[in-house]
Amino acid sequence: MNYSFSEKVSHLQASAIREILKFTADPEVISFAAGNPAPEAFPVADVQRIAKELFAEEPIAVLQYGITEGYTPLRDTMKKRMQDAGNFKPETEDLIITSGAQQVMELACKSLCNPGDTLIAEAPSFIGSLNAFKSYNVNLVGVPLDNDGMDPQKLEDTLKANPNTKLIYLIPNFQNPTGKTTTLARRKEIYALAQKYNVLIIEDNPYGDLRFAGEDVPSIKSLDTDGRVIYAGSFSKVLAPGIRVGYGIAPKEVIQKMVVCKQVSDVQSNNFGQMLAYRFLQEVDFDAHLAMLRGIYKQKAERMMAGIEAHFSKKIDFTRPQGGLFLWCTLPEGNDMMGFCKRAVAEHKVALVPGSAFMISENDVTYSFRMNYSTPTDDAIDKGTEILGKLTKEMFD
Amino acid sequence: MNYSFSEKVSHLQASAIREILKFTADPEVISFAAGNPAPEAFPVADVQRIAKELFAEEPIAVLQYGITEGYTPLRDTMKKRMQDAGNFKPETEDLIITSGAQQVMELACKSLCNPGDTLIAEAPSFIGSLNAFKSYNVNLVGVPLDNDGMDPQKLEDTLKANPNTKLIYLIPNFQNPTGKTTTLARRKEIYALAQKYNVLIIEDNPYGDLRFAGEDVPSIKSLDTDGRVIYAGSFSKVLAPGIRVGYGIAPKEVIQKMVVCKQVSDVQSNNFGQMLAYRFLQEVDFDAHLAMLRGIYKQKAERMMAGIEAHFSKKIDFTRPQGGLFLWCTLPEGNDMMGFCKRAVAEHKVALVPGSAFMISENDVTYSFRMNYSTPTDDAIDKGTEILGKLTKEMFD
Repeated sequence: MNYSFSEKVSHLQASAIREILKFTADPEVISFAAGNPAPEAFPVADVQRIAKELFAEEPIAVLQYGITEGYTPLRDTMKKRMQDAGNFKPETEDLIITSGAQQVMELACKSLCNPGDTLIAEAPSFIGSLNAFKSYNVNLVGVPLDNDGMDPQKLEDTLKANPNTKLIYLIPNFQNPTGKTTTLARRKEIYALAQKYNVLIIEDNPYGDLRFAGEDVPSIKSLDTDGRVIYAGSFSKVLAPGIRVGYGIAPKEVIQKMVVCKQVSDVQSNNFGQMLAYRFLQEVDFDAHLAMLRGIYKQKAERMMAGIEAHFSKKIDFTRPQGGLFLWCTLPEGNDMMGFCKRAVAEHKVALVPGSAFMISENDVTYSFRMNYSTPTDDAIDKGTEILGKLTKEMFD
Repeated sequence: MNYSFSEKVSHLQASAIREILKFTADPEVISFAAGNPAPEAFPVADVQRIAKELFAEEPIAVLQYGITEGYTPLRDTMKKRMQDAGNFKPETEDLIITSGAQQVMELACKSLCNPGDTLIAEAPSFIGSLNAFKSYNVNLVGVPLDNDGMDPQKLEDTLKANPNTKLIYLIPNFQNPTGKTTTLARRKEIYALAQKYNVLIIEDNPYGDLRFAGEDVPSIKSLDTDGRVIYAGSFSKVLAPGIRVGYGIAPKEVIQKMVVCKQVSDVQSNNFGQMLAYRFLQEVDFDAHLAMLRGIYKQKAERMMAGIEAHFSKKIDFTRPQGGLFLWCTLPEGNDMMGFCKRAVAEHKVALVPGSAFMISENDVTYSFRMNYSTPTDDAIDKGTEILGKLTKEMFD
């Protein structure tokens, strides 16, 4: 028979990144296309010990149903941690455990947006979130980033032009895909605009704990005086993505709706991942663990930047991230970015993600591509940047 | 600030069952309100052993990202098992691993239904699925069950009256909440009507392996000649709900859209649950495990039915399930079902779920309530039926 799909999803494509991830199963391909934590970043011995303890001490609790809001000891721990970080106000706010931070974006959009409502995102931005928003048929509008974050003048123009704007979506720290960090001044300007035009903000912060240079910048959530910011956090980059544990913080009324939406989606997040995250926070020196992660990513980021400096055509600009997993390279206008990415993987077996994957529409013009330094080995970073460098000189010099 | 929620969710309430579950945290309450597997049904020793092996042998694979479609060895195993059971056609169909079977309903509805499309469900039916459908603003219409399943004449009337019907949702085996099983003849009639009116069927089968009396009935999926049936299966009732692993089978085009929707929701299901389910199927005698589960539930079901027969007012009808976790009691018309459920829990500390929780609208009239026998201990079943019996005689004789 013929299948007719809903208007919501008929225009949606599978994520280009995850399609490329499948392709990079070829062991000969050097992949700068992923966003995976480094394998050496996983605290394997601690996880082995905690798993053993969990199944010895409370096997039924791991296996039985739990509540939709999340495993209470983990929620309580995260509320405390987030309160200390200025991201949680116990009087007016609540915290929900989600199946990865991605689910925060999906539940928030489902709870708040009708089809056609405007949602403003950084352009470029994380494709997974953009697709989550598109899957609810919102009017997704991009506002470009400069080096300090989303351009406030263009944001105000966009808010004026779209009086039905409901949400602004931001990744202020080490943004995916650009690696850029929004300055404190810019965070304040954006928050003030959200107040002026009475819209909510989703602050997605999966990489905030992975700063390896410069100074921490206060979260937008910590500046939130009127319950306008939905905050998304994750254990994927600081513990393990395979456990699928993230969390969302928002005013109680908003969390209540997100709980109902989660209940009809996956009922609850898996217990093992939640209980592992809880015990990890209790039993392990988390700050020392984060310091270890920052050391790994600092070394890898510096190695990739050094490789780019040594080998790439000088015509290529690139960002110098102070944390996170990605940097962003930009060709001079008019050059064939897509052709470069295609030749890199097909002829030279080095995989990148073309910047078009992160644009509001894949047809939007961009001359940039994303490079990931967390997943490849040191050797692959050295070799891959050298190979790419030759190709940049061949194609653009 | 004031929050305005989307039209999709503004009418949605938290599941009454899960609200009651919270209430039953009081250890003095005998709960017949849950739907949890019996604690003694969990294969704790096998799970302990497999968890240890998994983290010793492939810790990085457990912790790292996987693919949205699901853990390939588990998918391949389930495809083979489902093909053997007549539920999977490898040429035209595909199988997605989901975060519990609930997610199959949510992804299928999101992929296929526009707001206002009609979705037909058994009345009563599983509240979690009904709420998933409602969360996409479909026109949800109920068709009553008789003892053989959904009434075909009323189904046809409903299909005629709603030419925009997209899906029929059914739980043919040991239905939640009624415990009823749809006969083979009725399954064929319903399938023929789906063909005649060109609609799809979602066959939700979480309890099919838990038959403890009577003969297996072929699935509707096994009768499906034209790619019209979406099949939902689950490990929640045969292994553990806390791992959040289910699966959906459908024509490849439908699964592709469901994969895109899953990608934007939780990216992938947690690896530990998927790898545990895979190794459990590989290493443990699954048929012997199922036989053990059936033994537990047969004993508990018979115990509850004996308690009802011994103590309840003769005016109360109840179903005699041949499998699954639930039975369904019905008061004579005009009696105060809700008052009975309230007095049972408030005055006598025995929790039930009022039938209204399972109606298409909570305002639909019903004189029934659901009783669960899988979660309470034998002693609680004996005591609880006796306590309820006295109240039925007091209120209805």
